[in-house]
Amino acid sequence: MLSSKKKYIVNSNSRIKAQIQFADQKQEFNKRPTKIGRRSLSRSISQSSTDSYSSAASYTDSSDDETSPRDKQQKNSKGSSDFCVKNIKQAEFGRREIEIAEQEMPALMALRKRAQGEKPLAGAKIVGCTHITAQTAVLMETLGALGAQCRWAACNIYSTLNEVAAALAESGFPVFAWKGESEDDFWWCIDRCVNVEGWQPNMILDDGGDLTHWIYKKYPNMFKKIKGIVEESVTGVHRLYQLSKAGKLCVPAMNVNDSVTKQKFDNLYCCRESILDGLKRTTDMMFGGKQVVVCGYGEVGKGCCAALKAMGSVVYVTEIDPICALQACMDGFRLVKLNEVIRQVDIVITCTGNKNVVTREHLDRMKNSCIVCNMGHSNTEIDVASLRTPELTWERVRSQVDHVIWPDGKRIVLLAEGRLLNLSCSTVPTFVLSITATTQALALIELYNAPEGRYKQDVYLLPKKMDEYVASLHLPTFDAHLTELTDEQAKYLGLNKNGPFKPNYYRY
Amino acid sequence: MLSSKKKYIVNSNSRIKAQIQFADQKQEFNKRPTKIGRRSLSRSISQSSTDSYSSAASYTDSSDDETSPRDKQQKNSKGSSDFCVKNIKQAEFGRREIEIAEQEMPALMALRKRAQGEKPLAGAKIVGCTHITAQTAVLMETLGALGAQCRWAACNIYSTLNEVAAALAESGFPVFAWKGESEDDFWWCIDRCVNVEGWQPNMILDDGGDLTHWIYKKYPNMFKKIKGIVEESVTGVHRLYQLSKAGKLCVPAMNVNDSVTKQKFDNLYCCRESILDGLKRTTDMMFGGKQVVVCGYGEVGKGCCAALKAMGSVVYVTEIDPICALQACMDGFRLVKLNEVIRQVDIVITCTGNKNVVTREHLDRMKNSCIVCNMGHSNTEIDVASLRTPELTWERVRSQVDHVIWPDGKRIVLLAEGRLLNLSCSTVPTFVLSITATTQALALIELYNAPEGRYKQDVYLLPKKMDEYVASLHLPTFDAHLTELTDEQAKYLGLNKNGPFKPNYYRY
Amino acid sequence: MLSSKKKYIVNSNSRIKAQIQFADQKQEFNKRPTKIGRRSLSRSISQSSTDSYSSAASYTDSSDDETSPRDKQQKNSKGSSDFCVKNIKQAEFGRREIEIAEQEMPALMALRKRAQGEKPLAGAKIVGCTHITAQTAVLMETLGALGAQCRWAACNIYSTLNEVAAALAESGFPVFAWKGESEDDFWWCIDRCVNVEGWQPNMILDDGGDLTHWIYKKYPNMFKKIKGIVEESVTGVHRLYQLSKAGKLCVPAMNVNDSVTKQKFDNLYCCRESILDGLKRTTDMMFGGKQVVVCGYGEVGKGCCAALKAMGSVVYVTEIDPICALQACMDGFRLVKLNEVIRQVDIVITCTGNKNVVTREHLDRMKNSCIVCNMGHSNTEIDVASLRTPELTWERVRSQVDHVIWPDGKRIVLLAEGRLLNLSCSTVPTFVLSITATTQALALIELYNAPEGRYKQDVYLLPKKMDEYVASLHLPTFDAHLTELTDEQAKYLGLNKNGPFKPNYYRY
Amino acid sequence: MLSSKKKYIVNSNSRIKAQIQFADQKQEFNKRPTKIGRRSLSRSISQSSTDSYSSAASYTDSSDDETSPRDKQQKNSKGSSDFCVKNIKQAEFGRREIEIAEQEMPALMALRKRAQGEKPLAGAKIVGCTHITAQTAVLMETLGALGAQCRWAACNIYSTLNEVAAALAESGFPVFAWKGESEDDFWWCIDRCVNVEGWQPNMILDDGGDLTHWIYKKYPNMFKKIKGIVEESVTGVHRLYQLSKAGKLCVPAMNVNDSVTKQKFDNLYCCRESILDGLKRTTDMMFGGKQVVVCGYGEVGKGCCAALKAMGSVVYVTEIDPICALQACMDGFRLVKLNEVIRQVDIVITCTGNKNVVTREHLDRMKNSCIVCNMGHSNTEIDVASLRTPELTWERVRSQVDHVIWPDGKRIVLLAEGRLLNLSCSTVPTFVLSITATTQALALIELYNAPEGRYKQDVYLLPKKMDEYVASLHLPTFDAHLTELTDEQAKYLGLNKNGPFKPNYYRY
Repeated sequence: MLSSKKKYIVNSNSRIKAQIQFADQKQEFNKRPTKIGRRSLSRSISQSSTDSYSSAASYTDSSDDETSPRDKQQKNSKGSSDFCVKNIKQAEFGRREIEIAEQEMPALMALRKRAQGEKPLAGAKIVGCTHITAQTAVLMETLGALGAQCRWAACNIYSTLNEVAAALAESGFPVFAWKGESEDDFWWCIDRCVNVEGWQPNMILDDGGDLTHWIYKKYPNMFKKIKGIVEESVTGVHRLYQLSKAGKLCVPAMNVNDSVTKQKFDNLYCCRESILDGLKRTTDMMFGGKQVVVCGYGEVGKGCCAALKAMGSVVYVTEIDPICALQACMDGFRLVKLNEVIRQVDIVITCTGNKNVVTREHLDRMKNSCIVCNMGHSNTEIDVASLRTPELTWERVRSQVDHVIWPDGKRIVLLAEGRLLNLSCSTVPTFVLSITATTQALALIELYNAPEGRYKQDVYLLPKKMDEYVASLHLPTFDAHLTELTDEQAKYLGLNKNGPFKPNYYRY
Repeated sequence: MLSSKKKYIVNSNSRIKAQIQFADQKQEFNKRPTKIGRRSLSRSISQSSTDSYSSAASYTDSSDDETSPRDKQQKNSKGSSDFCVKNIKQAEFGRREIEIAEQEMPALMALRKRAQGEKPLAGAKIVGCTHITAQTAVLMETLGALGAQCRWAACNIYSTLNEVAAALAESGFPVFAWKGESEDDFWWCIDRCVNVEGWQPNMILDDGGDLTHWIYKKYPNMFKKIKGIVEESVTGVHRLYQLSKAGKLCVPAMNVNDSVTKQKFDNLYCCRESILDGLKRTTDMMFGGKQVVVCGYGEVGKGCCAALKAMGSVVYVTEIDPICALQACMDGFRLVKLNEVIRQVDIVITCTGNKNVVTREHLDRMKNSCIVCNMGHSNTEIDVASLRTPELTWERVRSQVDHVIWPDGKRIVLLAEGRLLNLSCSTVPTFVLSITATTQALALIELYNAPEGRYKQDVYLLPKKMDEYVASLHLPTFDAHLTELTDEQAKYLGLNKNGPFKPNYYRY
Repeated sequence: MLSSKKKYIVNSNSRIKAQIQFADQKQEFNKRPTKIGRRSLSRSISQSSTDSYSSAASYTDSSDDETSPRDKQQKNSKGSSDFCVKNIKQAEFGRREIEIAEQEMPALMALRKRAQGEKPLAGAKIVGCTHITAQTAVLMETLGALGAQCRWAACNIYSTLNEVAAALAESGFPVFAWKGESEDDFWWCIDRCVNVEGWQPNMILDDGGDLTHWIYKKYPNMFKKIKGIVEESVTGVHRLYQLSKAGKLCVPAMNVNDSVTKQKFDNLYCCRESILDGLKRTTDMMFGGKQVVVCGYGEVGKGCCAALKAMGSVVYVTEIDPICALQACMDGFRLVKLNEVIRQVDIVITCTGNKNVVTREHLDRMKNSCIVCNMGHSNTEIDVASLRTPELTWERVRSQVDHVIWPDGKRIVLLAEGRLLNLSCSTVPTFVLSITATTQALALIELYNAPEGRYKQDVYLLPKKMDEYVASLHLPTFDAHLTELTDEQAKYLGLNKNGPFKPNYYRY
Repeated sequence: MLSSKKKYIVNSNSRIKAQIQFADQKQEFNKRPTKIGRRSLSRSISQSSTDSYSSAASYTDSSDDETSPRDKQQKNSKGSSDFCVKNIKQAEFGRREIEIAEQEMPALMALRKRAQGEKPLAGAKIVGCTHITAQTAVLMETLGALGAQCRWAACNIYSTLNEVAAALAESGFPVFAWKGESEDDFWWCIDRCVNVEGWQPNMILDDGGDLTHWIYKKYPNMFKKIKGIVEESVTGVHRLYQLSKAGKLCVPAMNVNDSVTKQKFDNLYCCRESILDGLKRTTDMMFGGKQVVVCGYGEVGKGCCAALKAMGSVVYVTEIDPICALQACMDGFRLVKLNEVIRQVDIVITCTGNKNVVTREHLDRMKNSCIVCNMGHSNTEIDVASLRTPELTWERVRSQVDHVIWPDGKRIVLLAEGRLLNLSCSTVPTFVLSITATTQALALIELYNAPEGRYKQDVYLLPKKMDEYVASLHLPTFDAHLTELTDEQAKYLGLNKNGPFKPNYYRY
């Protein structure tokens, strides 16, 4: 289920839907759904969508070459052909994209500077499988600057920016990825990263768990030399915990998905902005005075509610958890059951991580022009399937916007077919991606340099001190000046002056 | 100057810039700049821009017919040919757009119902010159339903939605307008509305003053039968006040631009949302933690500041007026001179109505990646011309987004070349247009039905009671329930139970 | 009616209620109620109340002398006995209070400095009748520093701070005022200010209109030498407009009550804070999650709503004016009729200026523990009289807090017996008083120095430029830096560089 | 140190300071300072302070009897004399206070109803040592209704409300407590609770750890029958963890201080309101436009910042922890070092839990009239001692407000002598106390009914399900309606329909 969802991408131009399933692997990894949004994983959706404001998109369009990259003979300017990308000639365009991204990822650039002298990744042989974007490129080149050798494949068949892949190949990174891979291409690319004569990875950076899975299946012996896995996605982390439970995890793994900084930015702070952006871009609606019900008051719901309240909407909240419910009350939102307000609201937003939160019965009772969208983890929250019945007419009025029309003329405005609004109809700010990439880099450094015995064959959270370090690297962006403890104060508090500053259970 | 600006439209696709100047007319009407944003006038920019989310745009693209409408022979299904549009066959598409707009303009629909029995415009012959959009169509058909005969031209050579024009022509409205008129076409269309055998207008609805100007120039005798002019735009209103001062205004005119409701929605409430929308669509930036300086704390500035503060930006304000400055202080903003913060801010937003608020000197001192944009009235606030010097490189990175690059590599991100951000890079919600259209309809009814002597040959503001009526017609959208005064209370307050409820100087 | 209200003061200690009525004068001055809060007038209520935090109160308590000041022989240290205060020996304590107030009234102190060289009030003989507080003392001594001679009486029989009056007398001001005057004392004091051998006033500073009234009645010939009246209160202004209408106003009068700065501070900004303060001090309630209905969305209502929303309350609004109603909607409040929510709300706040907004019927339907209070203009908004029926039990649980108990045990918490909450249970910040006092000083200067003919025998608003000047004098408090127009910009905008900056109808 | 602080109470009337130290016990329990505010512990300060609004205070004043309660012979109306209170005749007044508190503690009342049938505490013999207030009385009577026998002493020598103690004694609770106990009285009362013939406690409810300490010292054998300890205060919890570490804890203990609900309410939500209240009651200042620096951005700091920002202050934040610092940035606050802004701010607020955050050097550099106060955990944050030097003059201007005056006349306004502002100058809403009391009751039920082996001799946090239950009992206050999971949804999420709903590390 989950691994297939990862590849279920709507290309908003052609409206092609690809759904690739690997029946055999699912049994092992995907026993139950994950509970949290798969944001990082799906990030590419927005970036690969044809947004008229996206500069990158235009380059891609010009490459109307239909030959498969696997069938092409390409060399970079230094004569290397250890890569496979769409068109090496696009390297210059890609380099420009990378340079722009560098400006917005000061933390990685600072990491390059601070850690470069000591080369903390000298000797590291990292195999990676992530989305191939300008931001990833900044990460890869940072890893390189820190001493690592890298080989890279895409974790998603649609998300690769071909120009960026070309730029990486041009500067010597063995990259195997292009936009629009087939299923077979996907695994072929991964295999090309791993199965190399005279080179064996000692670190894995994975996003979704497919690379890890492939090595488990095909090259289990490789794990003898592997020092650790860094995994970013909810899905991949879930797979790792299952492996661990089953006693099959044979190296330490770092769960970077649940680090504090990443969570707060991926959820609360990012959604506070993207809910407004997603609704505006799709509907041009005015927020002032609108009645909105937000289902779920977790971090995502908190962000949505705060933003809409600030814009003058009247916001209702539904919750199952009494603690979050009490928070909603204290923050000034009426806590209701969906049924109580469904007839009167102008907008319904789901962010529960649950399924069938909005049912056909609810949809039947909504008023004309009600907007329905999902900010939660997958496309299960709104029972969209229940709307595929003969008496209802679907009308696509814009990209990502469907009118579903009842026999009496009532229209519901369904956004992104119930998929994640902020990924389908908005973009993820580079600043959020910067936090993720920095966390990944630090996790690699930590695992690679950890003394024998610090990490067992288990799944670990990033040490709090590293989490704090990621945060500190992003403070200069805001010209923010941290206060330092005096010796006397540190002693009084019983803290090390350099942190960590909080107990593990601290809630922030 | 001003009348030319009206036609200065950037088509974001082709980047064609049209600038039509009518040397003779300018002397008379445009002695000095207006102080307030010409929002309604420029509304079409966003609507005619090729936004990938705009459904209307696609229809237009399909009409690749290059023949001038003036050279075509077209008839609607009832056999009439008293119109001139791009393609009468597009009527069905246009009708659908109008129907959608009707759903979002309940006030006009209510007006149709409430006033229909009495036909308050029976006998009215209205000649109109406005943007031809779905919203205008709802207005025109409302006027028709109230008893008026209408003839219509476009007030802007680019803003006409051809399908809507076709739909209006099909249902019997003599419409003369298409997208991409030449200068000559523009005046020809206006003339076809006015110069009709056996039909003479007795009301004028104008947007920009060109129609009024044409009648003054060509058919001054027509004013004998004209009961009044309703003018919406800042420019047109300015022209009327000049005529009035010069003693040349020969009929009553209604300034609907300065009605309370319209002003609050066009400025405070609309900009509160569009500043975020415009910045997101162009730059995908994150607002949290950003330092922003907003120049000017009028209604527009207040809206921008409130929105950005709510999104977690640190906002500074500059002002020349000590009262507005004190308001900024009490609302929690540091009041500074631009020079004090120019080196540290991430975003500079102008909303002063003034010129050269941001000078080359300021631009030179901004930090790398600083975003500069204008929410004020025209393209004078940022001295963009000063950036057209040889040592600076301009790079168009997206539609409406230029990087201006200094020799040392510093980049400034200039949005919409200093033109109005919210009109260039955002959209105007139908709700705002609804308020404007309703105000226009009521002004027509008032002027047409006013007893002899109520209005002289002068420019009037909409009576407060009408302003209140416009507001009341929009309350049902929010399911808002107004309280009524008891007789005893009305007597106590010395008020009529039906309003007006406030003295004229009330500030809201 | 109104003039009697002014003297209706609840002393929270002794709960003495004084109600002085002058039957004859009412016919002439008070034909109908005023519409706006009589804030400045009632200011003394809070200041004279025995707040445990008030330092001033304690001194007063120590003066247990029961002799009437009129029967005492007192001299100040310079040998003068041209004053009548409670106890000249308290002068030192009063001086300290004045010094503290000076620190918080920088605008008046700046005025002293800026205008002192030229002595703009040289030759002015001002007779004043206001509350006698430390803030008034700063005003009086400023007038003196600017060249004026002053004689002063109290406008309220309870509000005088005896120590401050003593300090003023000690430094040579002929002051006639003490706390707890009788009705006869009140007029005697006024007469002593006016009826002086060899001294005749040429300016009047009044607060409530009693001084003006007295001169009209007793010394009408004095108006020949009087250059103008400055009146601060709603009541007094109302009386002046009535005189003007009746053609009986024989000198120019300045209405300082309706100046922009004063209005915004007295209403919006002051109430935004005092609603929270008043509710906390009386009930210690928690705001988070509480359901509140605010009746009226004028400036006071806007302030209350903003504050409570920010503290996490769920706020409903009632309105009679559709424009204010639409503002409430756009600001995110559900607009309801009181009946719709009266059963569910935890707090009812009136700020309408109307009467019987909360009726016995509403009170009967409120839930147990509902808090009812008034932030509007007088004690008419809540029909408190309707609660004085035998079946209801009143229980005074704290100063200003009554429980009204229904036969079934339901309790309503009534604050300040329906009088103004913010004046009864909170305090007015010195900053607000500073704005009022500065406005009064400038109005005196303007009227005194105006060239012949600028002002007729009519009531005037403070010139906008003066309003702007008051604001500018208060900006340094916030370290706020105003931007100045360049010559070029001023020309472009058609403005004088020193203001005024806005047209008269500007709404701020 | 800490245990002594507990008894360090400033009585704002008489300014008596009591400091009772127990040299021997400190070595064992208090090795280092706690990090979090001792809110619940110090709660009594505000309640026992002579607030003019406090109804309870007045009763106490009337009891001018100077005989020690230990020397009196008192009986309640049923003839029992197993208690020791100030004056049993005050019972009726106390009963009324309890009844009022009952109305505001619906959760405990619901608990009585829900759990009464089953009597979950049947057989429980609870000895308690807490503040004796109306809220505690509601807790005790709830425990009684659930089947428990209780004996009670005060945990603080000043905080007992004598009337409430009398009411409890009258209705049969053996209570040993009065306001103004001596040190000897304090331990005598505790001993009278524990050392009873024929009755031995099997549960301990402690607040500060003194009761627990006493039993450890005097009656260690009692622990054989004791099923568990419930401890509320930071200090007491700290002592328990030390006992546990030392291997000396011989029964399970429940740390209710760190439960989610209690923490959020004691810190974030409570301080959001009390910072405003505390500042207003002491200084009557206006918040709008003021520059404020808040030291520390934990829960308390977050609450203070949110409130002040909402009131129009300009807020700066200092932090040592980069994660909290980044949160401050994203929430829109400039992150600075204290030195950067110390010269310009109007208010300095500490909420760090650290010591010497504001030093003499900072105080020397503050501008005139700067207000300095502490919302953190103890009186260490501001170095008040450094202000006790000869060249500085202290002037007490109000209760809890000192002016510290520099030789050049500069005044600093120091609130509550650097102690907790919200406890010294504000009150704790009953709603917050209700959450605490409910948590205590549930912890007692849990420990008393837990099956053998669920809890070892260790310190436990309240099970998340109980935390959720506390929250759910408080939802009806807000008329909040929780959504229930369907079976299908619960299965999908892998959750029990009744919770717990979140993993332990969830941050809320």
